[in-house]
Amino acid sequence: MHSPRQELRVDLGERSYPIVIGPSLLGREDLTPYVAGEQVMIVSNETVAPLYLEAAKACFPGKTVDAVVLPDGEKYKDWQTLNLIFDALLERRHSRKTTLVALGGGVVGDMTGFAAASYQRGVRFIQIPTTLLSQVDSSVGGKTGINHPLGKNMIGAFHQPEVVLIDTDTLSTLPDREVSAGLAEVIKYGLIQDVGFLAWLEENIDCLIALDGDALAEAIYRSCACKAGVVAKDEREGGLRAILNLGHTFGHAIETYAGYGTWLHGEAVGAGMLMAADLSVRLGRLDEESRDRARALILKARLPESVPAGMEPDDFRQLMAVDKKNVDGTLRLVLLDALGDAVIVSDEGSPALAETLQYFCQSS
Amino acid sequence: MHSPRQELRVDLGERSYPIVIGPSLLGREDLTPYVAGEQVMIVSNETVAPLYLEAAKACFPGKTVDAVVLPDGEKYKDWQTLNLIFDALLERRHSRKTTLVALGGGVVGDMTGFAAASYQRGVRFIQIPTTLLSQVDSSVGGKTGINHPLGKNMIGAFHQPEVVLIDTDTLSTLPDREVSAGLAEVIKYGLIQDVGFLAWLEENIDCLIALDGDALAEAIYRSCACKAGVVAKDEREGGLRAILNLGHTFGHAIETYAGYGTWLHGEAVGAGMLMAADLSVRLGRLDEESRDRARALILKARLPESVPAGMEPDDFRQLMAVDKKNVDGTLRLVLLDALGDAVIVSDEGSPALAETLQYFCQSS
Repeated sequence: MHSPRQELRVDLGERSYPIVIGPSLLGREDLTPYVAGEQVMIVSNETVAPLYLEAAKACFPGKTVDAVVLPDGEKYKDWQTLNLIFDALLERRHSRKTTLVALGGGVVGDMTGFAAASYQRGVRFIQIPTTLLSQVDSSVGGKTGINHPLGKNMIGAFHQPEVVLIDTDTLSTLPDREVSAGLAEVIKYGLIQDVGFLAWLEENIDCLIALDGDALAEAIYRSCACKAGVVAKDEREGGLRAILNLGHTFGHAIETYAGYGTWLHGEAVGAGMLMAADLSVRLGRLDEESRDRARALILKARLPESVPAGMEPDDFRQLMAVDKKNVDGTLRLVLLDALGDAVIVSDEGSPALAETLQYFCQSS
Repeated sequence: MHSPRQELRVDLGERSYPIVIGPSLLGREDLTPYVAGEQVMIVSNETVAPLYLEAAKACFPGKTVDAVVLPDGEKYKDWQTLNLIFDALLERRHSRKTTLVALGGGVVGDMTGFAAASYQRGVRFIQIPTTLLSQVDSSVGGKTGINHPLGKNMIGAFHQPEVVLIDTDTLSTLPDREVSAGLAEVIKYGLIQDVGFLAWLEENIDCLIALDGDALAEAIYRSCACKAGVVAKDEREGGLRAILNLGHTFGHAIETYAGYGTWLHGEAVGAGMLMAADLSVRLGRLDEESRDRARALILKARLPESVPAGMEPDDFRQLMAVDKKNVDGTLRLVLLDALGDAVIVSDEGSPALAETLQYFCQSS
């Protein structure tokens, strides 16, 4: 189906970079061509470091490699934890020519990227994502940042990596829940842009759940290619790029309501995509059959079908009001006109939205 | 000598912007063409807000103008205070189309700029600098950031404003010490690049000290033009731009040693320029007469001629080791080959540097 080591280019002019995908890359791939000076700082977390830190260090032969290990979890995606990276960089006197390396999931990637964007007003960074979600989502596109108590990812920067290294072997240690969370984003690419990929996913969902290496590599490659294509057309989210947020407006509200880290990001996006599909049907955009097909695939990926217990429509309204896509107070949502065809819609409080919120809040 | 309202363009391709300089601009100049959406957030401090906040609001007729007032001082240039800006933006639900306005000195400008660079991964901002130092220095060039306990301006971003509005009337309320601190940066432009401007300053230093409006406007215009020229050639400080840091490596060490805010930035830069000139002579780069001419002008501007009492050469060495200009552990300094001719030099611990440090630390 594909060669063991695949390479994909994200085309962003002078900020273009390669994504390398394959098994057994950690510790074998030489990443020194992407390092500017002599210093490297690997940022990881307490879960991932014991498994892969030594192998990651081996990707930088001849360099001075330091490491900082953060606590694990979305609830640590805050300023206090970010500051541990700055502390380590300054204590070990890393210069403006240093290179930061994110070794872990989306939280480590987002924080390391923002630290790299901000340290001495910007240094290089490299992504080594070790979860399915970060491999197919946050490692592509240059979005970095931290959470604020009043909103997710509210503080950050666009900062592109020099290279992304995806070693598919790291998925063998991934808990089931995180595999499902990653599949939510994989399914998203099919829903918004590629109905052929959606059909492939329907056929291969059992192999993916079972962590079949070839199927995972194929899903990762196609997901990254989809996202890279969208990002190349709209790096700073002026328009098109917003379709990558299918399910995210509802999903972010769920994450914030539940408390960061209680629901995994992908789980919340999965529920959010069900809500977006439901609203699309109520607005007459999508037929019920397509909605049911999307729903069946999402549930086969072992993703939740309801919102957190006790969450009310007003909780959604309040939390969705601070979404970054909103313009001058008007809510903007990503909906589906068909499977593989997403659209961005302004919603000034439609009755259909009220119905969708009511429906999901009642059934939880 | 010049028209009452002058305009200067900082040429940075699609990030180009105008600097408007003149008396009585606050409250009269319409800045709404530089605002993208309907929301404006003015960031000021406890000292400046009572004097100029209402006038600044009047620059945005028809817009929703909110304000956040920070405590005043370099010691508040930290994450905790920066977060007050994010809190205000999120509490009042400012969208990605909001515009931040910095109304105050360099600290307010640097923090507001960094908040604008980071809020929702980047929004617009406008600079209304109200101190001489911020008018001639930090309002031009897009450097933004906050301090870290281990180093000044270590966390930040390059983020260019939409427009800079310099109302020279605001200088009438500026304390003497801050006028002198601003003059340090004005003198710097003469020293690094424009010996003709240096001669003009020698002739007009008494008028400047006496806050003569025409002399100030001329000094501001020529300083901004000098900086704009350098920044246009090297926006992200790949090389040339570093000459703007004359006196800053020594100066940052003084500021950090004394505790942020004890010495004003310009005061530390003034002492730092004396040290750079002294070192330049010891290295055989600069003649003693030029050094004495620089020294006389700096002292006429009422700037300190010694370093903080008790500061030792090793304090300098340790604090200068984390300077952003350093590359792979080697100190880089801006020195003078002549008045009006700065040069960037690597110093791996020369005996001349030891002599300069010893000389200034003994005389303090």
